[in-house]
Amino acid sequence: MKYLRYRKDGENYFGVLEGDTITELNGDFLKGNAEKSSITYGLDEVTVLSPVEPSQVIGIGLNYALHAEETGKPLPEEPMMFMVSPSAVISEGEEIELPTLDHRIDYEAELAVVIGKEAKNVSEEDALSYVFGYTIGNDVSDRHLQKKDGQFTRAKSFATFKPLGPVIETELDPNHTGVKLTLNGEVKQQSNTNDLIHKIEKLLVKVTEVMTLQPGDVILTGTPSGVGALSPGDKVEIEIEGIGKLTNYVKE
Amino acid sequence: MKYLRYRKDGENYFGVLEGDTITELNGDFLKGNAEKSSITYGLDEVTVLSPVEPSQVIGIGLNYALHAEETGKPLPEEPMMFMVSPSAVISEGEEIELPTLDHRIDYEAELAVVIGKEAKNVSEEDALSYVFGYTIGNDVSDRHLQKKDGQFTRAKSFATFKPLGPVIETELDPNHTGVKLTLNGEVKQQSNTNDLIHKIEKLLVKVTEVMTLQPGDVILTGTPSGVGALSPGDKVEIEIEGIGKLTNYVKE
Repeated sequence: MKYLRYRKDGENYFGVLEGDTITELNGDFLKGNAEKSSITYGLDEVTVLSPVEPSQVIGIGLNYALHAEETGKPLPEEPMMFMVSPSAVISEGEEIELPTLDHRIDYEAELAVVIGKEAKNVSEEDALSYVFGYTIGNDVSDRHLQKKDGQFTRAKSFATFKPLGPVIETELDPNHTGVKLTLNGEVKQQSNTNDLIHKIEKLLVKVTEVMTLQPGDVILTGTPSGVGALSPGDKVEIEIEGIGKLTNYVKE
Repeated sequence: MKYLRYRKDGENYFGVLEGDTITELNGDFLKGNAEKSSITYGLDEVTVLSPVEPSQVIGIGLNYALHAEETGKPLPEEPMMFMVSPSAVISEGEEIELPTLDHRIDYEAELAVVIGKEAKNVSEEDALSYVFGYTIGNDVSDRHLQKKDGQFTRAKSFATFKPLGPVIETELDPNHTGVKLTLNGEVKQQSNTNDLIHKIEKLLVKVTEVMTLQPGDVILTGTPSGVGALSPGDKVEIEIEGIGKLTNYVKE
């Protein structure tokens, strides 16, 4: 099932997407008691919002071998985690704003895990039962600040740096799905999560060994090779097989 | 004024502390409309809670010159920021739990800034008007993981690693106040925030240049020199002049 949030006539709603038709839900899909109403819209009749408003956004560094190679860093033997501010999240269609043209600022296509229930110390066997579903993320990163700070939080937390959406797919094998990013129509990243160094279950085990995750929290699972710079006016499209496509333009 | 949260007969309350007397408030002090009731308690009649439940906890690395020196790292020309999970926060009196005895896990005494209103792109002149007040923080850190990961999030986000409290003092000059940590009665850290490399106003400017802070969010402003390891059974007391004392034991 594909879940989304949208805005219509000044109000925010939860819905289900089937084809291009949205059916309004009578409550928050994360709360588990949302039922379909009889109200439907075409996808082009609403403004799509980010599918969740996470309280925590956890990023995973260097989780595809080829990307680790292109950065010149050794493969992490454990998932390398960092946090970014939820205030960076934007939705399908919103513009990515570059705070400066003096720094290289990169796109990063990523499978995003959306947590469904409070999760602490989960086991590898049970890990996926804590997942509500999967969406698409772009882990936009200021490379200059990332290198300067060492810590990734600042480089990746600027407003608009975390496009998420458009939908959360609940039926997906997260460890075997294609990830593709095109910049102005040209394919820049193309991989499959079967190349993840640390699988989704492992990420959930290691993150929740440390912290408690809440429903709606997001883990960005790392980006494959092919990262590159954004420029004003660019069109960034990220497709994840089974989920759909996340499209954002860079503000001119 | 000293504000706090506490638990009494199974319910949570907001209050004001004067001497050892708590006066119950009729609402959340962060919301600005909390008034004193006629109900009072002795401090020893209640369980003190963390004074806020932050949505974001931002840490600042290497913000005292002497501490930067003891780590062998160069002084950061800009505040070096990272985020830790709010799920690590505990209150005065709760126990710090060491997840392993195989790693060195350190105390870090810090002045903690509590945000009072939504803050984005604040100016240095206006910065302090976004602050609700100041409390005491202990930025407990697993040095092994901090070094291994490079990123600080994991090393500093384990459950119980962020003692905060006991009160928020609204009347304080944050750039001229004494900070002292004693471990089992022996002074280990002793400094003054007038040694901060980046003053409180600067931290607020640089953090909100990136992200939007919400009321109750916390900035841990960095620790002075003298950090050292915790062991089971240790008593850690952090005193900040004008605020009070935060006491936690390490679980045996």
